[in-house]
Amino acid sequence: MIKVGIVGGTGYTGVELLRLLVSHPKVEIALITSRAESGRRVDDLFPSLRGHIELGFSDPDDAELAACDVVFFATPHNVAMRSVPTLLAAGTRVVDLSADFRIRDVKLWEHWYNETHACPELIADAVYGLPERNREQIRTAQLLACPGCYPTAVQLGFMPLLAAGLVNTQSLIANAVSGVSGAGRQAKIDNLLTEVSDSFKAYAVSGHRHLPEIEQGLADIAGGPISLTFVPHLAPMIRGIHATLYATLNDAGRAANLQTVFEAFYRDEPFVDVLPSGQYPQTRSVRGANTCQLALTVPGSRDTVVVTAVEDNLVKGAAGQAIQCMNLMFGEDESLGIAQPGLLP
Amino acid sequence: MIKVGIVGGTGYTGVELLRLLVSHPKVEIALITSRAESGRRVDDLFPSLRGHIELGFSDPDDAELAACDVVFFATPHNVAMRSVPTLLAAGTRVVDLSADFRIRDVKLWEHWYNETHACPELIADAVYGLPERNREQIRTAQLLACPGCYPTAVQLGFMPLLAAGLVNTQSLIANAVSGVSGAGRQAKIDNLLTEVSDSFKAYAVSGHRHLPEIEQGLADIAGGPISLTFVPHLAPMIRGIHATLYATLNDAGRAANLQTVFEAFYRDEPFVDVLPSGQYPQTRSVRGANTCQLALTVPGSRDTVVVTAVEDNLVKGAAGQAIQCMNLMFGEDESLGIAQPGLLP
Amino acid sequence: MIKVGIVGGTGYTGVELLRLLVSHPKVEIALITSRAESGRRVDDLFPSLRGHIELGFSDPDDAELAACDVVFFATPHNVAMRSVPTLLAAGTRVVDLSADFRIRDVKLWEHWYNETHACPELIADAVYGLPERNREQIRTAQLLACPGCYPTAVQLGFMPLLAAGLVNTQSLIANAVSGVSGAGRQAKIDNLLTEVSDSFKAYAVSGHRHLPEIEQGLADIAGGPISLTFVPHLAPMIRGIHATLYATLNDAGRAANLQTVFEAFYRDEPFVDVLPSGQYPQTRSVRGANTCQLALTVPGSRDTVVVTAVEDNLVKGAAGQAIQCMNLMFGEDESLGIAQPGLLP
Amino acid sequence: MIKVGIVGGTGYTGVELLRLLVSHPKVEIALITSRAESGRRVDDLFPSLRGHIELGFSDPDDAELAACDVVFFATPHNVAMRSVPTLLAAGTRVVDLSADFRIRDVKLWEHWYNETHACPELIADAVYGLPERNREQIRTAQLLACPGCYPTAVQLGFMPLLAAGLVNTQSLIANAVSGVSGAGRQAKIDNLLTEVSDSFKAYAVSGHRHLPEIEQGLADIAGGPISLTFVPHLAPMIRGIHATLYATLNDAGRAANLQTVFEAFYRDEPFVDVLPSGQYPQTRSVRGANTCQLALTVPGSRDTVVVTAVEDNLVKGAAGQAIQCMNLMFGEDESLGIAQPGLLP
Repeated sequence: MIKVGIVGGTGYTGVELLRLLVSHPKVEIALITSRAESGRRVDDLFPSLRGHIELGFSDPDDAELAACDVVFFATPHNVAMRSVPTLLAAGTRVVDLSADFRIRDVKLWEHWYNETHACPELIADAVYGLPERNREQIRTAQLLACPGCYPTAVQLGFMPLLAAGLVNTQSLIANAVSGVSGAGRQAKIDNLLTEVSDSFKAYAVSGHRHLPEIEQGLADIAGGPISLTFVPHLAPMIRGIHATLYATLNDAGRAANLQTVFEAFYRDEPFVDVLPSGQYPQTRSVRGANTCQLALTVPGSRDTVVVTAVEDNLVKGAAGQAIQCMNLMFGEDESLGIAQPGLLP
Repeated sequence: MIKVGIVGGTGYTGVELLRLLVSHPKVEIALITSRAESGRRVDDLFPSLRGHIELGFSDPDDAELAACDVVFFATPHNVAMRSVPTLLAAGTRVVDLSADFRIRDVKLWEHWYNETHACPELIADAVYGLPERNREQIRTAQLLACPGCYPTAVQLGFMPLLAAGLVNTQSLIANAVSGVSGAGRQAKIDNLLTEVSDSFKAYAVSGHRHLPEIEQGLADIAGGPISLTFVPHLAPMIRGIHATLYATLNDAGRAANLQTVFEAFYRDEPFVDVLPSGQYPQTRSVRGANTCQLALTVPGSRDTVVVTAVEDNLVKGAAGQAIQCMNLMFGEDESLGIAQPGLLP
Repeated sequence: MIKVGIVGGTGYTGVELLRLLVSHPKVEIALITSRAESGRRVDDLFPSLRGHIELGFSDPDDAELAACDVVFFATPHNVAMRSVPTLLAAGTRVVDLSADFRIRDVKLWEHWYNETHACPELIADAVYGLPERNREQIRTAQLLACPGCYPTAVQLGFMPLLAAGLVNTQSLIANAVSGVSGAGRQAKIDNLLTEVSDSFKAYAVSGHRHLPEIEQGLADIAGGPISLTFVPHLAPMIRGIHATLYATLNDAGRAANLQTVFEAFYRDEPFVDVLPSGQYPQTRSVRGANTCQLALTVPGSRDTVVVTAVEDNLVKGAAGQAIQCMNLMFGEDESLGIAQPGLLP
Repeated sequence: MIKVGIVGGTGYTGVELLRLLVSHPKVEIALITSRAESGRRVDDLFPSLRGHIELGFSDPDDAELAACDVVFFATPHNVAMRSVPTLLAAGTRVVDLSADFRIRDVKLWEHWYNETHACPELIADAVYGLPERNREQIRTAQLLACPGCYPTAVQLGFMPLLAAGLVNTQSLIANAVSGVSGAGRQAKIDNLLTEVSDSFKAYAVSGHRHLPEIEQGLADIAGGPISLTFVPHLAPMIRGIHATLYATLNDAGRAANLQTVFEAFYRDEPFVDVLPSGQYPQTRSVRGANTCQLALTVPGSRDTVVVTAVEDNLVKGAAGQAIQCMNLMFGEDESLGIAQPGLLP
């Protein structure tokens, strides 16, 4: 059994990790920390877990965490990097769902996150946890930086096009939509049902923290600099990311059968599903599931390709992908514990 | 492996059976019928099942169904009773999620459903599939009549009070609320998002088809006639039943520790969960789960007891309970394939 | 023109007052106060009001408020009572939408609101602002205590039955459902879209602050003590109250034509609408409107009458009713500025 | 008083016309037709209108309609064009909210709508009812073709850029999102609450009927051919259009102060509101209002300008704009009856 510790178990990423891990056949949850809820039973805060977990939240303690095989950080940024050196030194593996180790350029990270990085020397050791891109490095990673929810959908959507050099890399557009759980379980007027339900808006148009992560990832895939306009939006739903991606086809792109390109690219991926031509994905199809569903269209047979991609931001965009990586890190079947279909309707 | 056939696989109860059964370790789905969608792949209609099922819908055929170990009817009333005699004669077990075999009084059934019953002689053989009431009979049942969604919540909520004779049986009130999936996957203006979202209403106040089923069940539990006022409502949500039950305590009821009564009554039940005093259940805690969560209160310490109960109408109120019964019928662990926690948030 | 001041303009009751008053032909809004948002333009906080109001929020100042003809308090309890003595002394009329002057029994008030009342001597002068009950006293009121949202719906629903003595007064039940705006515009995790959408729950079953107000009102109508079980619930919608009321008919009640009783009782009321027999109200029909729609049913022709009533909690349950009262207090047409139909869909 | 007839009063555009017109001080509603609901009271179908209208639906009859001053067609395409010749011949003005007269190129219309046009000779006489573009022609129009909901938002958003020649006209992108009411009040499984709530999807990516109308409008504004990629999406909300528009700035565009350009362009428009720099519009701010709110951003100060625009699809995108045009056609104040602020929250 893999002995798991979870730091920051009171947010939506935390409770989603718990939902999936309590049914995972090779995992034993040893420890769930929360400064604010220390001493409280987990199932008192989350009654959906009654009967599934007997633990209470404990105060974070690096020594206790170091006794685990792997520690998940389901925290805001600026938490994991305080404990990671200790844990790695103890031989404990770390799966960080926060942003602390996602950006290789520490200055860029410090600019967007407005913090001094606590252990810049470890950033280079972190493996970016997108299995469709880095599966082999993930298997041996000690420190795993899980991708953000937007970056996962945008990278999976653009990847076959950029990897094959089929589009102009300088005019990429990602019009992305998130459910409200992406904003976390925090007391904010802006995310009250009364403020966001039955409404739709863009936000952070002039710049969102996920932009440098997406740009880094797309540039890696393209093998050179790219230029991206990324506009996030908020939709009145609990879960789900929907990305609508626009790119201009180059000569190779116009000549290619894009449906075939996508299907071939993702043929062996257990969690990326290219829909048949003419279907478009909807977020509810992957509610609670670890799957990213994709479709592509070239409207009017002109030179703009439109890719639409959906995922559950808490699963493939966070907790599910983290467990997928954990499975790889511990030599288990990659799909173990995360193979359930979505909850529809 | 239990070879399963499903009749009526295109409704919400049908797709929920599929969601649960594709992960059930002892089930092989052999056949899914639909007159309207015959020939179409199941995962074309329900993209959430892509990668989980390769079958297509087929035309219903009693001979093919009879080759299964068990057939689920996820149909409107007036379908199962046409095929049940043939299937039972062939030794195939039947789990009927419709209303055809729920009411023992065939005249009462014919009054509420406005049909002539096709096999009234078989009604007496049907076992009512509420495991918390009829577990032993379910184990040996050939023909199982699954409870409706409202009846499950209302009976589970009143049961400890009526079984122990703690309330006046002549002034019971069940104020129940359902999500829209209870109305089925049918093209009706009344259930468009534009008609029911951001709104709330009562319906069928003067009489709902689930009333005679609830009355029959409560009278069985009470061991004598009861009188119930049942008012169903529609809430703007996809899944969930919330029942608020009111009863007047008698002398025994006023003397009892009701919290203790409820906890003792359900102590060994895997799928009924009595919340600690002071907590109230919410439907989202059981979204996608087979659990009924209950709480009870005596406001102002007067003589009215209020029980609140929640369930997912498609799981404990339909498909999950049907599988729970199937597990019992085939000697499997009662929780097999239906033990997952709810999807929260 | 009536010169209006509003204290507490940043909550939902405040913005609803503004929405209605900016179009009111006899009103000039002179002043909107908010400690937290002092100095900020109103339409910066509420972009729906751009082009409709040029004011900014100002710090509350009793002298400035006293220069108004009428001051609305759209505040939590424990604010209005601090300023009311000064305002009344200056001859300014006060419409208090909070709870400070609703309960005549000051000890009862202090028990439920856990505060010492600041001016108990003025409570007796306050007129309870339910026009259907107190129209004549409202016309001459200096200090008006606006009813809460639940109390308005529950009293309007029970009133014809209690006034005519048609039901047992000792076993009343009010099963009420509110949209989330009833909880106010406050940063609370409990009311995030992610916590309350697609879900339903009861709350405060053991006792809600609106209970003593409802009990006082119903006892006044009945002309003697009543006993009520009141269970509030939260539905995933922005606006709306739906009350399902249960009462046991007495001999007079069984003999009466209740539909006729209700229609006669409310015949001349501009804002209470008794639906034809067989129809049930839905909250969306009164979204944004000052109307309470009612229906009544006697299920199974037994002796329990069920009344269903809907209102918009921010309009007839708060701001609209306050303006209705203001119209009466200033001798204007009672419907001025609040006669618009609901926003459907 | 303007004597108004409405053809097709049972859809969402129809009930929205009624909501606005019952309060319009210069309008008398003479006639509302519906084949399906003929004989039924309007307020029986739409209880929100109880007390506001006494009419019933009548069978459509061109002679009765011709006795009106103006007839609104709130019908699907292929209805208005059957009656328009008769009505115009009788001197009755027509405001067509359907698509019948929006496209000047009759072959293009017939391609997208798959019908033979019934009176192609009248298309040239129709004035396109976008007041911000055609105000003077609207004043004298006999036959008015109201814009679609998507076209209104997209044209208003791009107009200042195209009119001033600030962007590349060959790479325009309109990523648009609609509430479900845009799909009409029709019995379709696809638009059940259970199918579309808590979910998000693109649709008609390969081509939507509003595309040729938008292309025609943008080309008119640009004074030459344009190329547009238009991707519509469905969000789980009742009302609202949100358009996110992308264009590449040319040299003139990079040199311009775009905020100033937009503010100047719309300075005198009563129903287009350019938000201050840094704010983004949300659909709820214009719920029930006739306003289009706009904002613009140049992310990262690169060469892509992003315009976000919102409207209520049933008001500025349909009924409100139609009344705005009617006001112009009859010499009334353009804002009469449609000046109310949005319903927030």
